[in-house]
Amino acid sequence: MIPNLNIVPFVSVDHMMKLVLKIGVERFLTELASYIEDDFRRWQAFDKTPRVASHSAEGVIELMPTSDGEVYGFKYVNGHPKNMREGRQTVTAFGMLADVHNGYPVLLSEMTILTALRTAAMSALAAKHLAPPGADCMALIGNGAQAEFQALAFKALLGVRKLRFYDIDRAATEKCIRNLAGLGFDMVACATTEEAVEGAGIITTVTADKQYATILTDNMVGSGVHINAVGGDCPGKTELHRDILLRSDIFVEYPPQTRIEGEIQQLAPDHAVTELWQVITGAVPGRRDPAQITLFDSVGFAIEDFSALRYIRDQLISTGLYQELDMLADPDEPRDLFGMLLRAATATKTGHAAL
Amino acid sequence: MIPNLNIVPFVSVDHMMKLVLKIGVERFLTELASYIEDDFRRWQAFDKTPRVASHSAEGVIELMPTSDGEVYGFKYVNGHPKNMREGRQTVTAFGMLADVHNGYPVLLSEMTILTALRTAAMSALAAKHLAPPGADCMALIGNGAQAEFQALAFKALLGVRKLRFYDIDRAATEKCIRNLAGLGFDMVACATTEEAVEGAGIITTVTADKQYATILTDNMVGSGVHINAVGGDCPGKTELHRDILLRSDIFVEYPPQTRIEGEIQQLAPDHAVTELWQVITGAVPGRRDPAQITLFDSVGFAIEDFSALRYIRDQLISTGLYQELDMLADPDEPRDLFGMLLRAATATKTGHAAL
Repeated sequence: MIPNLNIVPFVSVDHMMKLVLKIGVERFLTELASYIEDDFRRWQAFDKTPRVASHSAEGVIELMPTSDGEVYGFKYVNGHPKNMREGRQTVTAFGMLADVHNGYPVLLSEMTILTALRTAAMSALAAKHLAPPGADCMALIGNGAQAEFQALAFKALLGVRKLRFYDIDRAATEKCIRNLAGLGFDMVACATTEEAVEGAGIITTVTADKQYATILTDNMVGSGVHINAVGGDCPGKTELHRDILLRSDIFVEYPPQTRIEGEIQQLAPDHAVTELWQVITGAVPGRRDPAQITLFDSVGFAIEDFSALRYIRDQLISTGLYQELDMLADPDEPRDLFGMLLRAATATKTGHAAL
Repeated sequence: MIPNLNIVPFVSVDHMMKLVLKIGVERFLTELASYIEDDFRRWQAFDKTPRVASHSAEGVIELMPTSDGEVYGFKYVNGHPKNMREGRQTVTAFGMLADVHNGYPVLLSEMTILTALRTAAMSALAAKHLAPPGADCMALIGNGAQAEFQALAFKALLGVRKLRFYDIDRAATEKCIRNLAGLGFDMVACATTEEAVEGAGIITTVTADKQYATILTDNMVGSGVHINAVGGDCPGKTELHRDILLRSDIFVEYPPQTRIEGEIQQLAPDHAVTELWQVITGAVPGRRDPAQITLFDSVGFAIEDFSALRYIRDQLISTGLYQELDMLADPDEPRDLFGMLLRAATATKTGHAAL
């Protein structure tokens, strides 16, 4: 497909939006979830490492690499909670895939939108295995940039149609309800978290403050619910009261990372958790009991980004929604990198003098 | 300079070549070396970590991040020795800089050519502090993609005019001599390494085989020379016989990385080495003695790439040699990422139905 060795296909923000709209958000989320599910089934094939984080007073910048031995991928992602007040995204991201056999990049892509989609797809995939069967009502606590994606992923994968919103900023809730109007939801704006969780079989927390917060207290969580805890995802940033964790069966992506970044940073380092990939392969059960509280302590793992990039790569040929980036120096004779410069000098008539 | 939050300036291979030719290779190398020197002077301001490597049977893919607290940078780079036989570069690379305060990328750049230039600039910068004063003859052992850049950097920074080439493949030597013709060198193609090192005050080894090789044996290295060992740069890949190391004063970039990747992987983990940044600040002496053998055990460190990207970034405005990449999703209201999609749907007349 890419005849020239120097070219790397690049999916811009504009192309990503066109791609999502062409495929349709719900179908996109469903197909993306199945790519993640496929990769979780072959979990042991992957090189896994906690992300490489560079912390500053205002936020964090992370690299999230992984490889399945054939394809290598990584994501660059930042998290700066104060960005929102300056008119910027809290989280921006881009990522790439490369061929393990020769190290050449094969895809570069925006991942701000793609991360929002993969996070929602991952949440819904986990809930498919953990939520009470037939749950069709979800409380959405935190109505920022991730909220609508969560709503649509849970509709697409689990048939959730009833949404109960709460945010400390009423305008955020109103934005969500406006954006999701006409998409088949029965939506209620609630005045408190207590009100939002009433009757909800699934509780999604997706707030953004960088602090130990207590978005949910123990008394708000009834037996039998599934909690999808998305917002607590770095050291010092949690959303749930510790007592909830002690009553829950906890499912995680990659324990060495979740113990540092997830809700379980509040627990002892040997507190029992279940790895989600083992539920997905069927090696261990997900939900066993109608009274059980299940908790997906989501922090986002490199394999999910790898799956998302793989999915995007598989859409390139059929959609043509990418541009060609002249990113790799490719002299005719590989040892003659300097000769490339010489020939460019001749071509531009700069001549040898420029050297 | 960049008014739109979604845009990241990108320097393609073509733009990089035009930039190098516009500035001139020797001036580029000299200015780049001074950026590296400036950053080595403030070494302690940087977040330092050995690179994050993903090894496979055929090569390695690495991420090299660093930050000075204001700017964050990383490089993606692969090393696949067998690539050359398939008509590909052994090493390809790209990198980026981001603003630590908000995590937004501010530059994306090809780095295959840039890495070749920074490696040569780094070698010459080290030699400026370590080589015998007035040395004007250099042996170049290994005449692949890096060789011409080394020659020009040593000419620009140290006034080296005499080059003695050796490569196991005579065609590689011929390529070097052809490429460097007319650039002010006195050049000799040698039949053996022994012949190449005759009378050379500086010996540069820059071969590419991924194995424990012995490019230089002890008897080839006379007293007083400076060895610039560039090719040995990953576990299991070395160029010098261990006895040479035992006779040399060894200078390195970042010991935790060099002990894994450099020539000194052949030595005990506590063998004394000097950190080059301390020579550059003047805290410790470089060359002390005319009979001393100095060895720069070069592996390439993240800060050098950071300096190179900083240099490129400072050329953008004056040269205009970049393109604008639509890489960051930037909704008018930061929490309204989904609304961006909705508005794109309206704009493309796909409408709400596409969701």
